Amino acid sequence: MAHPQSTFAQTAFHGPSLLRARRTTISRTTVKAQLKQLRDTGRYDCFKLQWHPVYDDKSSWPVPPSLFWDSDVAKWIEGACYLLADEYDEEVDRAVRELVDMIRGAQQPDGYLNVYFTVVEPDKRWSNIRDMHELYNAGHLIEAALAHKNYYHNNLLLEPIEKYVSLIHSVFGPAEHQLHGYPGHPEIELALLRLHAATGSTQAYELARYFVEERGNPRGQDGMHFFDWEARRRGDSPWKRPDHYPVSRTSHWYNQSHAPVLRQTSVEGHAVRAMYLLTAVADLACLDELGVRAWPARDAYLAAVRALWDNMVDRKMYVTGGIGAVKQWEGFGIDYFLPQGTDEGGCYAETCAAIGVMMLAERLLHVDLDARYADVMELCLYNAVMTAMSLDGTAFTYVNQLASSDADRSVRHTWFECSCCPPNLMRLFGNLGGYLWDYGAAAEDGEPPFVNVHLYTTAKVTFQAGGQEYVFEQVSDWPWEGRVSFKLQAPAATTTGLAVRLRIPGWSAGGYTLTPPCPTATLSKGYLSLPASYTAANPTFTLSIHGLSPRLIAPHPYTNQHTLTLARGPVIYCVEDADNPWEANHFRDITLSADARVTEEERTLAGERYVALRTVCRPRDLRGAGPGSGRASGGLGAERELVFVPYYLRANRGGKGHMRVGLLNQSVVM
Amino acid sequence: MAHPQSTFAQTAFHGPSLLRARRTTISRTTVKAQLKQLRDTGRYDCFKLQWHPVYDDKSSWPVPPSLFWDSDVAKWIEGACYLLADEYDEEVDRAVRELVDMIRGAQQPDGYLNVYFTVVEPDKRWSNIRDMHELYNAGHLIEAALAHKNYYHNNLLLEPIEKYVSLIHSVFGPAEHQLHGYPGHPEIELALLRLHAATGSTQAYELARYFVEERGNPRGQDGMHFFDWEARRRGDSPWKRPDHYPVSRTSHWYNQSHAPVLRQTSVEGHAVRAMYLLTAVADLACLDELGVRAWPARDAYLAAVRALWDNMVDRKMYVTGGIGAVKQWEGFGIDYFLPQGTDEGGCYAETCAAIGVMMLAERLLHVDLDARYADVMELCLYNAVMTAMSLDGTAFTYVNQLASSDADRSVRHTWFECSCCPPNLMRLFGNLGGYLWDYGAAAEDGEPPFVNVHLYTTAKVTFQAGGQEYVFEQVSDWPWEGRVSFKLQAPAATTTGLAVRLRIPGWSAGGYTLTPPCPTATLSKGYLSLPASYTAANPTFTLSIHGLSPRLIAPHPYTNQHTLTLARGPVIYCVEDADNPWEANHFRDITLSADARVTEEERTLAGERYVALRTVCRPRDLRGAGPGSGRASGGLGAERELVFVPYYLRANRGGKGHMRVGLLNQSVVM
Repeated sequence: MAHPQSTFAQTAFHGPSLLRARRTTISRTTVKAQLKQLRDTGRYDCFKLQWHPVYDDKSSWPVPPSLFWDSDVAKWIEGACYLLADEYDEEVDRAVRELVDMIRGAQQPDGYLNVYFTVVEPDKRWSNIRDMHELYNAGHLIEAALAHKNYYHNNLLLEPIEKYVSLIHSVFGPAEHQLHGYPGHPEIELALLRLHAATGSTQAYELARYFVEERGNPRGQDGMHFFDWEARRRGDSPWKRPDHYPVSRTSHWYNQSHAPVLRQTSVEGHAVRAMYLLTAVADLACLDELGVRAWPARDAYLAAVRALWDNMVDRKMYVTGGIGAVKQWEGFGIDYFLPQGTDEGGCYAETCAAIGVMMLAERLLHVDLDARYADVMELCLYNAVMTAMSLDGTAFTYVNQLASSDADRSVRHTWFECSCCPPNLMRLFGNLGGYLWDYGAAAEDGEPPFVNVHLYTTAKVTFQAGGQEYVFEQVSDWPWEGRVSFKLQAPAATTTGLAVRLRIPGWSAGGYTLTPPCPTATLSKGYLSLPASYTAANPTFTLSIHGLSPRLIAPHPYTNQHTLTLARGPVIYCVEDADNPWEANHFRDITLSADARVTEEERTLAGERYVALRTVCRPRDLRGAGPGSGRASGGLGAERELVFVPYYLRANRGGKGHMRVGLLNQSVVM
Repeated sequence: MAHPQSTFAQTAFHGPSLLRARRTTISRTTVKAQLKQLRDTGRYDCFKLQWHPVYDDKSSWPVPPSLFWDSDVAKWIEGACYLLADEYDEEVDRAVRELVDMIRGAQQPDGYLNVYFTVVEPDKRWSNIRDMHELYNAGHLIEAALAHKNYYHNNLLLEPIEKYVSLIHSVFGPAEHQLHGYPGHPEIELALLRLHAATGSTQAYELARYFVEERGNPRGQDGMHFFDWEARRRGDSPWKRPDHYPVSRTSHWYNQSHAPVLRQTSVEGHAVRAMYLLTAVADLACLDELGVRAWPARDAYLAAVRALWDNMVDRKMYVTGGIGAVKQWEGFGIDYFLPQGTDEGGCYAETCAAIGVMMLAERLLHVDLDARYADVMELCLYNAVMTAMSLDGTAFTYVNQLASSDADRSVRHTWFECSCCPPNLMRLFGNLGGYLWDYGAAAEDGEPPFVNVHLYTTAKVTFQAGGQEYVFEQVSDWPWEGRVSFKLQAPAATTTGLAVRLRIPGWSAGGYTLTPPCPTATLSKGYLSLPASYTAANPTFTLSIHGLSPRLIAPHPYTNQHTLTLARGPVIYCVEDADNPWEANHFRDITLSADARVTEEERTLAGERYVALRTVCRPRDLRGAGPGSGRASGGLGAERELVFVPYYLRANRGGKGHMRVGLLNQSVVM
């Protein structure tokens, strides 16, 4: 089982690219900026188990502000370990070592390892699995331990974490004396499955599968839904509920426990939780697929995951790849409810959720090589994810709205009270190499090894198959150019070759040129298959993806968003007042014509190349609009020029924070 | 102070009209159908103070299902008393007398009069003013008592109610020993002001004004917001909250107590509560206007009410006059959030809220004779209100969505657990005559008496001014025809005449013909003023309002509802599968062209004339739509005929319950 978090080290971003630029910024700046935040806020020292003034803050319920601190630290360690491998930094190395020492020191004799429930409410362990993130924190500690082990080649973190996993394994499970619960915020499931993949731990596999399969059991504990049972045990009134729950008693959908996963037909609730949960389900399927662990229910679960994926992508995903329209539960609204911003009814599109989509897509590609998953993975990467960090790597967004408003301008922050997103970006870019491709020995004897290329950039992967080392390289100025040069190095190039499958993105409408041509190439589900004989004969070859010129995207008509969005390849564009300083109303009244000519303009920002787009727009006149008239507006004003930049570049150049992705289609005004 | 509830008796619907037809149905059928519901559900006997099985139902919190029973009975009595005046019915008369006996018998020695807090939780009186509707129920009892007194000319109901008001006046107020509270659901304020107008009660005036002025005081009781203070007194956790409250601690906007009325700038929360509250504010202003009771803050309050009115009408009102998009709090969403149905994100438009708009508009016309208030009053009457009852008078809607969906078909029910709307319709139509016009002696000496005509129909008003009787009559087939004939009867016709002001509806664009002409007539704020000399010289005259042909209405562009709605005069139209049985998706994909020719068709249903409209539509093809394409849809299908009926007629003729008001503007597809 090859997770990106372990395979990334086999990939080197060996030449210039947009992805490498971002990764380098994170490695050189973000890691330390976040380390400073950890220190300044008290997180860094929290595993010392001393009292911190934040613990006196009882203003929020049920989740105190420090509840996720363990995970913030763990995610930072995980990301730092990924990035140290590329570029050593003494300060970062020292901090990781010190944090690991503190974590080891914080473990209780029975293996328990959680700051809040050791320091603040030691008698409340495992009493509110729905809300209190104990298992979520444990999951991130597991992931940190795996990254730490990979970089440091010691068990200083893994050893206490495995002890903690054993404790959790004893607490939760099907036996009568055990709690038949599962995390309110899924995460530990996918972490346990990575632990299983790395160490073979049976406990880890059992526990993850139990959490997945038990979830949503309406009568799991004493004939009750587990979360109802534990709420009753706590003595909570049924009408006492966290602010994330819009109504009492019927909000189990918030954490995807309203029904067993197998019976869920639409993706609901908190978007990050949904993605982490489904990633674990896909992981279980992958383990079965690979013959590591048989999972009799695999096909049924995969069918459920695919249906949920389709529901999400077809009806609940923004054109940026962002998911989750509703702020209150940080998650999905009803089908097609995708307003662009606060003043239209919401737009959350949390950074972590888009990262979760990438994780889920990556797992699904292992069981079903279909470019529709990779297309969405890339869409998220270049848009909903990359937009969440400033070019200098020190400022972030948590919510990634598609349109600003006076109430929510397009601005960034250096940190958040609940700061899950910034370290998640660090982790993701740390192991980004693992998302580019799958590769290895073929499943069947006699077949040549393979590489399935999902994402294009400049990078090189080195792997072993059949006792031989393969080095496969791609060079491209993606996403600005569609030309990707591949090179298979000797000796593989002169012997077996590699079976190579190359993604042909959906937006290219299947258009590509392969040089030299390959008469036996086949195109299936968006992947162009090149036989090993071709790559053996042509160790260097070039793929040019067509259709990289600017195009207009319309959301589904049922969204009631009669907008046009400019895109170019995988990059979604937005308008900002930085380029269009005349704008005073968040581009709410600016219209685009579907026929307008769009021109490209090469630009550089902070040394980074990008393509800006120019077209003309017309403002609509709202005078005379409204129920009193038969017209949707008072018509259109004069044409003026409008400049677009990639959405991921927004909020980097000052201005008033006016920004919009989808502009009104002029046809609704004409 | 002339409330419609007292002036209605001076108006007779003396000839055929749509309004009379509906009022007659209510008088002959609805009153008895609702009486049967009261009997069948246990409400009828509730004032006997015996245990009813419903009191054992603890499944809802904080509001038990029987909490509003007092008001259901009171509203039925009120409506019955209005209608008995027109047409005597022995069964109804007997029921009113019996109910009054039971209410009298239910009063406690100290004057307290509430079923739930006498029978079920006698120790919880006045402990949860925010949620428990004690004061709301009391308000409706006051209104019933006033109607009862007017019809029966005795104090059998008014006497115990006045005693109850005295008790409430002793409990609530500014003195240290009093509760500094006000009703979570406003209603008693406007009832107290009617009581004051009818009896001169100083207690009633003081209490109403206290409730209005104290509302939203952030430090009203022991330095706390009253509702926070009483919640703490009850020992409620801040995170325990009714399902109507989306989040904890910050939901005072739900009942308009988030700020003093004077500081509210947008209309928020539960729509009925907002309307009842603002009606009382307008009543206080009217009492000052009339010199009955000086209110130093009048101008400031009126400015606040007008700003809230404008916010509501311009940004938060459906084209039907319905208000309240959000089901959870039965109230207003953000500005321009007006989805047509459940599958677009909501549409509540409760019947009682539209009735509340009519009440508020009627009050505002007393202080500011502006047709914009009367236009909205009429819009609500013929659409959002009238749509809520079946033609036969036995079935109702509570929610008046503008588009059905599979989750919420366009259907009616004979009763509701919380059944505020059906008896409210009965009350409204009972005193509807009071909404048609204002009239009386002029404020200044030497000026002739006046009639301001707000609504057109066939009716006659009789009133005294300057010791002389005036009889003024209008005859019209409104809303089907724009011609209204007026007649001023002798002797007034031959002596002073009447100063008459006639509303020229906004949709007529000011177009009218007056016969015979009046050279000295002036048009101001949508009212055409005819001097008394004109009516003395022309005791019969005719007004013809122009612009009654079908027209298309577009909602404000910021609603993102790129729809066209057919209207004709004050009547809003809808499509139903009853006329268009080929429809299978709630007309969600049916488009109208702004240029389509619309023809009229005279029809009759259950003996009632109406005008149906015919035009052509084209379905949109959704194949190929969505983010993958640059197009908002796959284009348009072939033209087909589409039949529209008045929205108020919906759900009367069987079918599948597919209905829609606003149809997609074809321009968004082209």
